[in-house]
Amino acid sequence: MTPLVGVIMGSDSDWPVMGAAAEALTEFGVPHEVSVVSAHRTPQRMLDYARGAAARGLRAIVAGAGGAAHLPGMVASATTLPVIGVPVPLKYLDGMDSLLSIVQMPAGIPVATVSVGGARNAGLLAVRMLAASDDALRARLERFHADLEQLVLDKDAALRA
Amino acid sequence: MTPLVGVIMGSDSDWPVMGAAAEALTEFGVPHEVSVVSAHRTPQRMLDYARGAAARGLRAIVAGAGGAAHLPGMVASATTLPVIGVPVPLKYLDGMDSLLSIVQMPAGIPVATVSVGGARNAGLLAVRMLAASDDALRARLERFHADLEQLVLDKDAALRA
Amino acid sequence: MTPLVGVIMGSDSDWPVMGAAAEALTEFGVPHEVSVVSAHRTPQRMLDYARGAAARGLRAIVAGAGGAAHLPGMVASATTLPVIGVPVPLKYLDGMDSLLSIVQMPAGIPVATVSVGGARNAGLLAVRMLAASDDALRARLERFHADLEQLVLDKDAALRA
Amino acid sequence: MTPLVGVIMGSDSDWPVMGAAAEALTEFGVPHEVSVVSAHRTPQRMLDYARGAAARGLRAIVAGAGGAAHLPGMVASATTLPVIGVPVPLKYLDGMDSLLSIVQMPAGIPVATVSVGGARNAGLLAVRMLAASDDALRARLERFHADLEQLVLDKDAALRA
Amino acid sequence: MTPLVGVIMGSDSDWPVMGAAAEALTEFGVPHEVSVVSAHRTPQRMLDYARGAAARGLRAIVAGAGGAAHLPGMVASATTLPVIGVPVPLKYLDGMDSLLSIVQMPAGIPVATVSVGGARNAGLLAVRMLAASDDALRARLERFHADLEQLVLDKDAALRA
Amino acid sequence: MTPLVGVIMGSDSDWPVMGAAAEALTEFGVPHEVSVVSAHRTPQRMLDYARGAAARGLRAIVAGAGGAAHLPGMVASATTLPVIGVPVPLKYLDGMDSLLSIVQMPAGIPVATVSVGGARNAGLLAVRMLAASDDALRARLERFHADLEQLVLDKDAALRA
Amino acid sequence: MTPLVGVIMGSDSDWPVMGAAAEALTEFGVPHEVSVVSAHRTPQRMLDYARGAAARGLRAIVAGAGGAAHLPGMVASATTLPVIGVPVPLKYLDGMDSLLSIVQMPAGIPVATVSVGGARNAGLLAVRMLAASDDALRARLERFHADLEQLVLDKDAALRA
Amino acid sequence: MTPLVGVIMGSDSDWPVMGAAAEALTEFGVPHEVSVVSAHRTPQRMLDYARGAAARGLRAIVAGAGGAAHLPGMVASATTLPVIGVPVPLKYLDGMDSLLSIVQMPAGIPVATVSVGGARNAGLLAVRMLAASDDALRARLERFHADLEQLVLDKDAALRA
Repeated sequence: MTPLVGVIMGSDSDWPVMGAAAEALTEFGVPHEVSVVSAHRTPQRMLDYARGAAARGLRAIVAGAGGAAHLPGMVASATTLPVIGVPVPLKYLDGMDSLLSIVQMPAGIPVATVSVGGARNAGLLAVRMLAASDDALRARLERFHADLEQLVLDKDAALRA
Repeated sequence: MTPLVGVIMGSDSDWPVMGAAAEALTEFGVPHEVSVVSAHRTPQRMLDYARGAAARGLRAIVAGAGGAAHLPGMVASATTLPVIGVPVPLKYLDGMDSLLSIVQMPAGIPVATVSVGGARNAGLLAVRMLAASDDALRARLERFHADLEQLVLDKDAALRA
Repeated sequence: MTPLVGVIMGSDSDWPVMGAAAEALTEFGVPHEVSVVSAHRTPQRMLDYARGAAARGLRAIVAGAGGAAHLPGMVASATTLPVIGVPVPLKYLDGMDSLLSIVQMPAGIPVATVSVGGARNAGLLAVRMLAASDDALRARLERFHADLEQLVLDKDAALRA
Repeated sequence: MTPLVGVIMGSDSDWPVMGAAAEALTEFGVPHEVSVVSAHRTPQRMLDYARGAAARGLRAIVAGAGGAAHLPGMVASATTLPVIGVPVPLKYLDGMDSLLSIVQMPAGIPVATVSVGGARNAGLLAVRMLAASDDALRARLERFHADLEQLVLDKDAALRA
Repeated sequence: MTPLVGVIMGSDSDWPVMGAAAEALTEFGVPHEVSVVSAHRTPQRMLDYARGAAARGLRAIVAGAGGAAHLPGMVASATTLPVIGVPVPLKYLDGMDSLLSIVQMPAGIPVATVSVGGARNAGLLAVRMLAASDDALRARLERFHADLEQLVLDKDAALRA
Repeated sequence: MTPLVGVIMGSDSDWPVMGAAAEALTEFGVPHEVSVVSAHRTPQRMLDYARGAAARGLRAIVAGAGGAAHLPGMVASATTLPVIGVPVPLKYLDGMDSLLSIVQMPAGIPVATVSVGGARNAGLLAVRMLAASDDALRARLERFHADLEQLVLDKDAALRA
Repeated sequence: MTPLVGVIMGSDSDWPVMGAAAEALTEFGVPHEVSVVSAHRTPQRMLDYARGAAARGLRAIVAGAGGAAHLPGMVASATTLPVIGVPVPLKYLDGMDSLLSIVQMPAGIPVATVSVGGARNAGLLAVRMLAASDDALRARLERFHADLEQLVLDKDAALRA
Repeated sequence: MTPLVGVIMGSDSDWPVMGAAAEALTEFGVPHEVSVVSAHRTPQRMLDYARGAAARGLRAIVAGAGGAAHLPGMVASATTLPVIGVPVPLKYLDGMDSLLSIVQMPAGIPVATVSVGGARNAGLLAVRMLAASDDALRARLERFHADLEQLVLDKDAALRA
């Protein structure tokens, strides 16, 4: 199936974090592709990836990066698709550098930023975007929310027991 | 026309920041509504707003809040629509409290966070989301990007002159 | 016995931190209840919990949450009881996000915030609130303070030895 | 009338911030007293104030301080009453030093901390504490919450107009 | 004369800060060019600028940017010239976001980062780089240092007077 | 011998950090005493300790504390001796709370603050204070500096080897 | 009279902050000298100043600097006198850079750091150091503390009036 | 061969970080020397090292330091060579103190700062500086960039497989 979401990251060392985005998309049956695309090591390829994304059928891009995290913002500069940025925490600074490098984009080029290390939520945000014009997917999201609620009720019962 | 995007904020004092989101939507001809909805002062009304949003035809919600900024995340908890959070800076801490309160959502409930005070980008992000399944809107976004590019070229020429 | 204090948290994963609040209440013989109530996964149930709390006899609520920690503030928005917030530290940022999300409440809706991970102090703060109109409990608090003092004297003696 | 709440601060220069605590208490008809008590310039007097507070009929203390803000915590060390700390922002650091100096109390001695500059909320928190055992005061708090809600509705109507 | 240093910035609004880099180069008689080149609004043009820089005779590039400041790092990814990054402070966060976005580059692609708003030092750093293989320029730098020293001696005399 | 320096801390759990202050004093043959004195658990005893310190012959006090670290500042408020504060890092926040709580003292009551966990330097600072009026001690400090210098030379030789 | 304290700063632009250190010394009748000595612009002169300080009769040095504030630590490296560091706040970062650059000295070379902009306290700390071996000066400090206390009492009376 | 780059650090304990700078220079065949030179323990030797560096043939200096990291800036004050600063992270504060102490240099004396722990990039930055006037070295850098690019392509292929 044609992928609807691209999940990209600057290095395969980001995969332990970013894998959760792909996993969330799989849970919701959203076809997606996964690539290593580096803003700093393959800048032209990154721009080409971003420019061709919409034409290839992508509807959203999830991009993870750490430190001076330029991948999400640069991809957003070369596509009109919504780009979701995941601040990947590095060894120092607890991802605060990653977060600020991704979220503080200048007027004109937004990046939809999620929490430090929040790749699962990035995947779910892509699902929400797609579900806004896909009733079947929205129904699945509603069941997912109901399941989250039930999980809390179960934990509550277990804690009180 | 039925609004496609809801722009909400906790107080009318957020309007000087949040107005830029509405303005961006207007530039792109996206019908939208504006409301004051407070997580802390009208909690039930906020949940009701969020729950009814999709059924009323909204496709995305832009929510701005400052300090212990709970509005975007709470709205996201009660709708499956994508929610875009704008950290509104208050008098102290330069919006760092607002940013962290919005972006650091737990797994399951994402908020698409933009920069501190970045309401214009929140509006543009909503446009990107809609444009992903609306070719006419995407074409307008592409002209917008071309205009941004031209603006830089003009400034460059002026600076060199 | 009717519980006087409600100890709530967004997930059972907060229990290793939040258990210390319940333990402090037990030490002082204050009847209390413990629940998992999630602002983001069970928003309506959370509001209902908060709204019914006073009528069920609660006199204070201790709420712990991490990251974009909305539980204490949202509960405070739906009850007039004093709400004590415990910033639970997550994997990154050392609880600074939790702290700011809880303490920086807007005018009108206060949350009594304690230190990062300070659930024991949250329990003790609830005891202080109750003791302000309960002489027997205040006497117990005074003995507790005397014991803390004695502990320091003992440690001093041991260190000098 | 015997004051039920003591509002203290280290210097009269804190009054522009701390006055809002007294004002909130006045709005709710809660008798209170106001004093300048300095942890660093009148340490013994501060301890004496704290020790005598309960016997004089106080039921809560609101203490504001800035920078290395020791007043709330030191007062809490010498009374069993609940102590509410207000981080007063100074010229530099936006009150982050004040906040951490107040909220990060060690186990055993809690301080109920409110937002940077949040003296109004400190007053309201004292009202909540008293209202937990005073039905008339609780009813007033409920009207106050209803008024806050109405205010949001009015602002919403005005913004939409 | 062929420019040896390129001074670039994302917008002409950065010029009040970045002008000091050009001024320092002028003081030392180093031929240079000034351009507006935006990572986010003209990404392809930025890469082309970087790729062609060495061939056009540039020996160093000074790049200023603010917020999610990607220009210096992206330029460094597409040239082997030394790139000097100037964190331009924006309205909020005092340039901390700009600093971290520039300095925290991943292994392989360094950016020589100077202080927040430190465009003058960026210019001087370019001079040092050139002077390392240009004895006349080094001599000028040594006079410059001697002048700085004399300035301090003069200020010292004035203060003591 | 009458102790010249008092080394105090709020809990014996601070000893693994604070022991290095005592050790430095021992290395220089400075008689000193060690005590557990808690600002929050033994406030009156702390004031009494501070008030009597000069009369007992102390010439400086080294005080370590963590979190809302009030001990150094409160001791300084009740003595005219120089007080050296050591920010003890706790489990979260890396000692930043401890540092700000100690260093940001209001005008009138200074605390000589050293680095996070810098107890050894606190001891050495006390030695410097005493040595300013004790030529023999100053000579020992000078040998100590010479030894530090030699150590660097040895390490340099080893690294080059 | 031979100066007992040296007050130094990197530039005369630091004088509006650092003047308060000299003023405090004047209030206590402590002879002192004031100089502009720059770590970065007059490094050799700075080392020479530090090395000769004790022999010229100085008993303590107060050094103020901002940003990458190296003056206090470098002076401390070349003298055995106690060095008091004043973090001078610059235009950005509220003095946090100055504070960390001064206080985080490595083991072996302590700097007695005061609050951001706390030059008055630096002067008072020098007085405390001298007073530890000068009974007349200590008596003056005690009167000063009594005056501070009285000032608080007067402000308290005024506020209550 | 005469070293072209000096790699210095305050202590051999910095070597596990700083070794990567030397390694990068070795990879590019750039002759270099390695020394332990301490700003705080061997201040005169440090100044002498810096002053003699250019005459001995060095073209750039890489200096690493942690905490109140004064080595890079002080060396820069005594040479006109470009100085590259590496913030070495210590046990607390994740290198934020080191970063600010190095990067926030005053106007006149720049330090080319790289990321926290970024010694490899410091070496590569020195290579870029030398390559700006050495075509053979620049060609090697271009191959290095091509290799980085190929590495990303390989990782991408592996991830997709």
